[in-house]
This record gives sequence, C-alpha cells and structure tokens, in this order.
Amino acid sequence: MNKIRAAVVGYGNIGKYVVEALEAAADFEIAGIVRRASSVATAGESKYPVVSSLEQLERVDVAILCTPSRLVEQSAEAALKLGISTVDSFDIHTGIADQRRRLDAVARENGAAALISAGWDPGSDSVVRALLEVCAPQGITYTNFGPGMSMGHTVAVKAIEGVKAALSMTIPVGTGLHRRMVYIELEEGYDFDKVAEAIKTDAYFIHDETHVKQVESVDALLDMGHGVNMVRKGVSGKTQNQRFEFNMSIDNPGLTSQILVAGARAVLRQQPGAYTMIEIPLIDFLTGDRDQIIRRLV
Amino acid sequence: MNKIRAAVVGYGNIGKYVVEALEAAADFEIAGIVRRASSVATAGESKYPVVSSLEQLERVDVAILCTPSRLVEQSAEAALKLGISTVDSFDIHTGIADQRRRLDAVARENGAAALISAGWDPGSDSVVRALLEVCAPQGITYTNFGPGMSMGHTVAVKAIEGVKAALSMTIPVGTGLHRRMVYIELEEGYDFDKVAEAIKTDAYFIHDETHVKQVESVDALLDMGHGVNMVRKGVSGKTQNQRFEFNMSIDNPGLTSQILVAGARAVLRQQPGAYTMIEIPLIDFLTGDRDQIIRRLV
Repeated sequence: MNKIRAAVVGYGNIGKYVVEALEAAADFEIAGIVRRASSVATAGESKYPVVSSLEQLERVDVAILCTPSRLVEQSAEAALKLGISTVDSFDIHTGIADQRRRLDAVARENGAAALISAGWDPGSDSVVRALLEVCAPQGITYTNFGPGMSMGHTVAVKAIEGVKAALSMTIPVGTGLHRRMVYIELEEGYDFDKVAEAIKTDAYFIHDETHVKQVESVDALLDMGHGVNMVRKGVSGKTQNQRFEFNMSIDNPGLTSQILVAGARAVLRQQPGAYTMIEIPLIDFLTGDRDQIIRRLV
Repeated sequence: MNKIRAAVVGYGNIGKYVVEALEAAADFEIAGIVRRASSVATAGESKYPVVSSLEQLERVDVAILCTPSRLVEQSAEAALKLGISTVDSFDIHTGIADQRRRLDAVARENGAAALISAGWDPGSDSVVRALLEVCAPQGITYTNFGPGMSMGHTVAVKAIEGVKAALSMTIPVGTGLHRRMVYIELEEGYDFDKVAEAIKTDAYFIHDETHVKQVESVDALLDMGHGVNMVRKGVSGKTQNQRFEFNMSIDNPGLTSQILVAGARAVLRQQPGAYTMIEIPLIDFLTGDRDQIIRRLV
C-alpha cells in the first residue's frame, strides 16, 4: 500500500503533536515540516526535512495546517493552488461558513479538497451536535466547555497593560454558560485591583462571571487537559423528553492533532471542494478495510 | 419545494411511530401504508391509503421498512427492484455487512439506494462508535445497554414451555456486560423453578447473569424507555488516557422511527448502492439550507 505523504505546516504546539499522531498512523509518512524562514535557520537536527515553503517538499498528498487560525486561510489557499489538499482546525466559529465557501472555489479550481475546522470544537463536537439533531430535530443542545484553558481568553488577558503572564480557565456552569477563572502575574508597579477591573470589563469577559487571581507563577498552573459536556433534550417525531449527553475529558492538542490526521486521510477521499466534518462520511476518517470497519463498528 | 413521498412498509409499533415522525417532518408527505393483505381487509378508516403492495401507491420516492428484521431483506429487494430507495433498521449485528453487500448489488442494478441498519443500535450508536475511533484509534469502547426491554430476549422467553407472558429487561453492569431481569406469567400446571431453570440455560441467557421473577401481570411492567451508555478510553496519536462517554435515555420506538425518517431523507441524496449510517455524511440526514446548517452546528 502506498502511504499518504503528509506535510506539517506550522510547528508550534499542535504541529508537534501532529508529527506524533502521523508517526502513530501506519498509513502515513511525513514528507516534511514547513516553518517560517527564521525558524528553519535556527532549527536543529530533525528526522524530517524542514523547509520554509511547501513547494520545497517532494510528492505531498496533503498539507496539515497547524498555523494560528487567522493564518489558516492563506496557508490553505497556497497549498490548494499547488493542487495539494488541506486539513485545518480553524476555530473561529462565526467565520467557518464563509471560509468554507471561499476555499471551496479555490479547491475546485485546482482539483484539490479542503477539510476545514476539523479539531474538536469545531470538529468532533460538531459531529455530535449534528447527530443529536438527527435523533431529536426539535429541542436545545447545550455545549459546556471545560474545565480547561481557553487560548483566546488567555491571549486577551495578556494584552492588558500590567499583565506579565496569564492563564484563563473556562469552567462550565451548565446550559452553555461559563465561568472565567483568570490567573495573572502582575508587572511591577501596577495595581492589582485596577488590572483585574480592566480584565473583567474587556469584551472577552464582560458577559461572563469572571474572577481574577494574582499568582506567583502561571507556569505552575498550566495543564493541557480540557473537556466538554454536551446535553440535548428534545423531540423525536412526536415523542418528547428524549435525552442525550456526550462527555469527554481529553488532552487538548493531543485530540486536535489526532482529528487533523484522521481528517487528512478523509479529505483525500473527497471530490474537489471544501468541506466541514459533518459533510464527510465518518468511515472516510478511518483506516483499514471498509467491510471490516462496518463489521466492527456498525 | 417538492415534498419527499414516503411509503411506510409494515404497520406495527415502529410503523405507527414512523407515521408520526413523517407528520412532524415538513419536507415529507405520506404516500401510503403497506400492510399484509389480511390486515388491509380489516383495517379501519385511515388518513392515508392502505394497500397490500408498494406498486399500488403513487409516486413513491422512498420506502421506510418497518417489518421485523428477518423480513427486511426481502422487503428491501422488492422496493429496490421497483427503483424505490429504502431505509431500514435491520438490527442483527452479525448480518449487517453481508446484507449490505447483497442489497448493494440490487440497488445499483435498479438505480436506487438503500440505507440499512439505521436505528439507534445499529444506527446512531454506530456513528458514535466510529467518531470515537476517529478521536482515539487505539483503545476499547464499551456499549452498555439499558435499562430497557430486549425484544429478542423477550421473544426467546415466550418460546419456553410454561411461559404465558414475558418481559426481559436488559440492565447494564458496565464494561459491556448485562444482567437479564426476566419477568414471567406462568401457565397453569407448570412449576416455576423448572421454567426458570429452562430460561437460565437457554442460549440467549446462559452467558449472562439472569434472574427470573414470577409476576401477576407482565403488561403492568411494560415501558418503552431504553438507554445506552458508551464509554471509550483510548489513545489519540501518542497521547494516552483520552476519555469519552455518550449517554442517552430515550423512548425506543420514538427514536428508531425518527432516525428512519431522517435516513429516508439521506438515502435519496446518495448514489445508487447500499449504505450504513457511517458511510453517509451527517448533514444529509438534516433538512434545510446546508449553509445555515453549517452555521448552526459546526
């Protein structure tokens, strides 16, 4: 069997876990890692080619995009224009549908496919949300996140004057509401109460219950664990009170990277165009004989 | 918008709930109900045409098969040979892959599509099992059923001499193991202990912890509620101890019928052939504008 040749684009936290997940997947081989030119220059020894652009790698079937969300679209476009299919975990929910439409056009023009927003939320959680609407079309789904670190909120806190280091934890309080527990190290000469007030009135925090705590070391609190609790109570046909619940407790980059790798497999099985996870059959994400998969899982 | 014209084939418990679910789905209309000739003769007034064969109904797009599992294949073949797509909730797990392969040939020959085993297990649970393998390819999934009535086990008890009426409840005890709580009414002149022993040594029960109780009225115990608890602990990439759980507490025929109706929608969007739920994108099971679905669920 020919192995799928994957390029890892971006080598931050997610990129490193994607390399691990590719090494654990027998049907893949790593074509190389694409990094910023400045990082390539200073990169040490690597098992894989490290280059500054995708064109420098040989025979790439799929590019796994591990760049920050706001850079994903340009990375995807660049790869698709080379005829290379892509998978990403773009996570700005309000931008997904439009990004999908724009990349769909680029993908079709170049005979490639793009799977977007294939992490855990958006991603596997989206699959669960869709399944629960299939099971009970009328009703409410609550997605409760945490406990776990919110990258977006943490970045927002770090941008506030007087904050030396920060961690914003998301705590689920049910019905889709969340408490924000913010831990900061204070810059010298700043007043804690004023900084805390600036955080609480920031757009990221003003609508949630937010508590700010000063700590000696944010690093001592870091843990990549995260979780979700999704609940739906709804109506199947005319039958009321159908209840569904999905829970997970996971290492955040570990799960995101695994789904990206499964998505890299799935996207190569699609016609040209751009897709979200709910538009692709789940069996396409799995390796192995399809008849055997059906016998095992259905 | 042209509504999807669905025929309901079989009018037992599931068939009645399918009619309800079709009435609740704005994109469907009911072409009619197909029953045994003897039932058609004695059927009273109905809002819908009641006939004894599918050919007697006009412009049927899809046949929803609500016959017992062992009769599903012949019903599906008959419909497919008329060029009518089908959906069923065939639930004999060991027979699914082979039945899919046989119906795939018939469906392709006749330019129609068949979605098989689209209930909740097999069905929506299969989708969850597939998703959990996408998230953590290495590990163990336990599917724990109940508490709820097992149709198969109840029928097996009823076949034992001396049993006048029976109910076999499935109780989950974890790690995919189940306790069987069997409630029987005894025929006059039979010895309870001997009948109980015959039940416990029956092939359906001999491998499980089984308790048999004599009751005055089985009917007084009947409840169509059921449930499932699925648990997976596994490895994403090289990251251990990823934990996932799916729970539901549902009205059994209510959920099965809802999924059949969503499946009737989905199967019409597929190329000719036979499919299980994990081979079809989830979005195809949902009604409405696809861009809006993506905005709402992804």
